[in-house]
Amino acid sequence: MDKIKNYIKRHNLINKEDKIVIGFSGGPDSLYLMLVLLELRQEFSLSLAAVYINHQLLVEASRHEAFARRFCEEHGVPFYCYRKDIASYAAKERLSIEEAGRKFRYATFYHVLEKLHYDSIAVAHHRNDLAETVLYRMARGTGWKGMAGIRPKQNRILRPLLCMTKEEILKELMKRQQTYNVDPSNEDTVYARNQIRHKVIPELSRVNGQVTEHIADLAEQMEELGVYLTDQIQGAWSSCVICDGDKRRICMESCRKLPVFLQKEVLKRALAEVAGSERDLKRIHVEQLLKLMEAQSGREMDFPYQIRAVRQYDELVIGKREEPREEASIRLQEGSQWIGFAGGWMKVEIFPKKDEEFSEKMYTKTFDYDKIRNHAVVRTWQQDDYFVMNDKGQRKKLNRYFIDQKIPKDQRKKIPLVADEDHIIWIIGGRISGEYKVTGATKWVLQLTWTRMEE
Amino acid sequence: MDKIKNYIKRHNLINKEDKIVIGFSGGPDSLYLMLVLLELRQEFSLSLAAVYINHQLLVEASRHEAFARRFCEEHGVPFYCYRKDIASYAAKERLSIEEAGRKFRYATFYHVLEKLHYDSIAVAHHRNDLAETVLYRMARGTGWKGMAGIRPKQNRILRPLLCMTKEEILKELMKRQQTYNVDPSNEDTVYARNQIRHKVIPELSRVNGQVTEHIADLAEQMEELGVYLTDQIQGAWSSCVICDGDKRRICMESCRKLPVFLQKEVLKRALAEVAGSERDLKRIHVEQLLKLMEAQSGREMDFPYQIRAVRQYDELVIGKREEPREEASIRLQEGSQWIGFAGGWMKVEIFPKKDEEFSEKMYTKTFDYDKIRNHAVVRTWQQDDYFVMNDKGQRKKLNRYFIDQKIPKDQRKKIPLVADEDHIIWIIGGRISGEYKVTGATKWVLQLTWTRMEE
Repeated sequence: MDKIKNYIKRHNLINKEDKIVIGFSGGPDSLYLMLVLLELRQEFSLSLAAVYINHQLLVEASRHEAFARRFCEEHGVPFYCYRKDIASYAAKERLSIEEAGRKFRYATFYHVLEKLHYDSIAVAHHRNDLAETVLYRMARGTGWKGMAGIRPKQNRILRPLLCMTKEEILKELMKRQQTYNVDPSNEDTVYARNQIRHKVIPELSRVNGQVTEHIADLAEQMEELGVYLTDQIQGAWSSCVICDGDKRRICMESCRKLPVFLQKEVLKRALAEVAGSERDLKRIHVEQLLKLMEAQSGREMDFPYQIRAVRQYDELVIGKREEPREEASIRLQEGSQWIGFAGGWMKVEIFPKKDEEFSEKMYTKTFDYDKIRNHAVVRTWQQDDYFVMNDKGQRKKLNRYFIDQKIPKDQRKKIPLVADEDHIIWIIGGRISGEYKVTGATKWVLQLTWTRMEE
Repeated sequence: MDKIKNYIKRHNLINKEDKIVIGFSGGPDSLYLMLVLLELRQEFSLSLAAVYINHQLLVEASRHEAFARRFCEEHGVPFYCYRKDIASYAAKERLSIEEAGRKFRYATFYHVLEKLHYDSIAVAHHRNDLAETVLYRMARGTGWKGMAGIRPKQNRILRPLLCMTKEEILKELMKRQQTYNVDPSNEDTVYARNQIRHKVIPELSRVNGQVTEHIADLAEQMEELGVYLTDQIQGAWSSCVICDGDKRRICMESCRKLPVFLQKEVLKRALAEVAGSERDLKRIHVEQLLKLMEAQSGREMDFPYQIRAVRQYDELVIGKREEPREEASIRLQEGSQWIGFAGGWMKVEIFPKKDEEFSEKMYTKTFDYDKIRNHAVVRTWQQDDYFVMNDKGQRKKLNRYFIDQKIPKDQRKKIPLVADEDHIIWIIGGRISGEYKVTGATKWVLQLTWTRMEE
């Protein structure tokens, strides 16, 4: 109890006469959170209210709800209960059950906060949650930002239990002989979270028993580091970026003066702001922008989300392309190209043929470079398109191919193609033309890799 | 192959006419590294040499050595073989087999480098090593520094395979039908490293199949971030620290102007430099230094490694205490104290007695605070020391106790004691005196926690 009081004081989580809504499931974590706040209620003259959400996922749901309601009644805490069929909601919103639950939960918390004119929402995240979150993000791919922990106070959300491990919470409850709801879905390793909790952490614990504490400590340090970096990046951003409507204009002279790390973070942020999302913006895109900064004035480069970056005199201008390109020239030189077409991007490699075999994949194909007569473009289907079916040079109209493949009419214009005039080199995701195949006589190989952007 | 060539170029790992020693075990990784460098040998006019270390751990050791030797002979690479009984060496140096192996290996690499007048050492670390190292450090506890990856080039060590996964390396070897040595100790999950490889990563892969790539990417980003932070910390350090012999004098006015993150890093570095090690220097020590900066002039605080920090006018002076204290007063007030005595530190907590039971541990004891007549000190054994054996108040001389416990004479002066004049309150690591026990009548509890510093 002293530990939590110190933590609350140190992070200034609670002030006199605060009105706090508690996210209350009656499970061990939120029950202990409730006990802590009940103990502080008089000292701080707190007003407390509980929000209970019945996710209707468990057979025990109504028993759990009754337990939570009774507990609050006994302790004189107003009890607000919301019922929601989370499974249907998740299906409707195309979210995982976990994501759907979280989304509805926080929406409800804020709703109650507004309705009651309360100050903040207390939730029961603890050190194990912190460590699990970090490992989960690492598995899915994350950078320094994702390594930062969950904050003890963010917006109007309080997390007073972040200083406690699950084990400590259970020990405290045992000491008080306090019963609580048990959610059997915690035992279900279908959820990624539970895979981390029940498989990864136990295996890591065999390397070091303190792993949860260690990762939680790391997350706290990364949180502090994140505060510092956010400031530094903001400073760097202000020093060299002008927001011009949807465009971001980067003064290259000022940008070059920054440490490389900050240059990259500024460029990443510029891309993300124009894109409206950080998704699919990868380190390689930032590297390409750095290269563009060293290129001649007038050079431009395309990126996901219809983004085009132009090196213009002393500025790098990052904005959306006016029109989504119907036809995009692939310059036949080694290097990556982003073709903002049909939501994908294309990598182009050209090299002398070697004796090794190429592993052909659905989205990586090799071609005989010298067979291309004009130049290759990415585009959609046009009336006269054809490809070569076999070694005899027999042609087939693309129209016919679509019909044979039973591709509906409205889909046909959405399939990206690589074409050499009317001759289709590659139906992306489908076959390649026989004429461009790599053979024993091939001298130069053109290798194309198509990556579909995730929506 | 193109991937590695690009990586070598991008990180400027190899220059024309370089002379490179290859750490060569004949296992898949170092064999592939050898193949890569053999392929570049002519293009770059490289001189290559192999260093093979026979750890004498495996029954296959001599067969492995013969294979490696033959491979080098066939490819015209000078072969330097060193034999060492690593198991005995590890026992002698009190290291794990893994640590002993690494220590001997690098010492040998540098030895050969000097002997041959070569430029650099190439070793075969790859992306899986990177990801495993990061997870291993996280389990054992690490901060932002430890999250940084292994560098592609550091001092004279090159790691050209850091852009490849193990899977990619094996695939390349298979393509060339190249055989290699197989080290069965890799299958042995006794080693922490193999626990990560064979248990933790597979469990994490079920959350996301790309986990190795993702963690390796994170490590690379943290590496870049680390370069930036090291510069920032160096700048901050120069702005406010004067090195005065063994002491570090911190100008508080300049230090306070820094972002909190940098303040902490500067203080941590000052402690580490005076200590001569980063070990056992924890976040809480830095927090205490920050507090000391806000205290009155003249206040001082003790830390591990005989460190004393003094707030002196406008400076914080961090240095070693003149004399290791034979006797250290524990001020009887709540808060942490570092008693730089017998290599440990003491945490002091005082609180009103609650009804809950205390879990007594070997290094955490509770006492009836009001029974202490004078004040408690930590010190070693003196002639007249005694403690109370039982509820009847029967005394026992500490001398006698040592004899009964068969503690050799030269050890007795090394055992830390908590004493109230001649009356021993607690033989740390052993028993407490009956007189200070917490009873039903106890009003205030003194709780002491002793943490031994790791050497």
